[in-house]
Amino acid sequence: MKAISAWALAALAASTALPASAQFAKSEDAIKYRQGALAVLGQHFGRLGAMANGKIPFDAKAAQENAEVVAFMARLPWAAFGPGTEGGKAKPEVWKEQPKFHELSEKMQAETVKLVAAAKSGNLDQLKAAFGPASSSCKSCHDSFRNR
Amino acid sequence: MKAISAWALAALAASTALPASAQFAKSEDAIKYRQGALAVLGQHFGRLGAMANGKIPFDAKAAQENAEVVAFMARLPWAAFGPGTEGGKAKPEVWKEQPKFHELSEKMQAETVKLVAAAKSGNLDQLKAAFGPASSSCKSCHDSFRNR
Repeated sequence: MKAISAWALAALAASTALPASAQFAKSEDAIKYRQGALAVLGQHFGRLGAMANGKIPFDAKAAQENAEVVAFMARLPWAAFGPGTEGGKAKPEVWKEQPKFHELSEKMQAETVKLVAAAKSGNLDQLKAAFGPASSSCKSCHDSFRNR
Repeated sequence: MKAISAWALAALAASTALPASAQFAKSEDAIKYRQGALAVLGQHFGRLGAMANGKIPFDAKAAQENAEVVAFMARLPWAAFGPGTEGGKAKPEVWKEQPKFHELSEKMQAETVKLVAAAKSGNLDQLKAAFGPASSSCKSCHDSFRNR
């Protein structure tokens, strides 16, 4: 696929999660949606991790594609954690500690934007440097808000 | 969120599905991925349909956002229907009739790009006109390749 333009990336960087106009008819729909979005994100993030950790050869083009999908997907799940959508793997703390949850979700989104910039550099060291903080941003949210 | 640039849309239009470099460790991962991607797509497509069919008020900004997610997601599932990933709701015909499957998936992707252009117009009639063919492109593939 062709690369997404710098302009679009800047727009991504400037944007936050999709707005609350994103609504779900049933809580099951919201759970299915957020789990689906995070599964897609996780798959592409895992491929970047495999490159960053030397488990598969570094492929600059694939790294950029994967990072762009990660950054796009990173905006989506949050609107699906609205009131009344408790369940799935989400801990009740998601709804009890909303400011912290929002802060961590925004941190993660910001890290994925940096990840795209690093991947676009075509430099494995830059990818490695960006992958660590991005991975930590996933983990810190999972530790607080996701059941195992 | 800010709009994706015309440049990026042109790139989307010119691109096909993500390449086969997208690989899955286990067939369950591929099934989970494609079901996740299609669930996210379906949610946003359903919101466009609700506007196109007058079930919810037309909101030009939300329509554009939803259409952009649909077009982005529309590129993703296909790499997850590789050899050895039979299962889920996919009929065996996916793997037996690959040229037809590819043709329908490409048709669907093309329709979602038109859907974005229609949504960006801010004109409900244009959205309605683009929604019908896009919806048909989903249905024709589901009829041939998805178990109920």
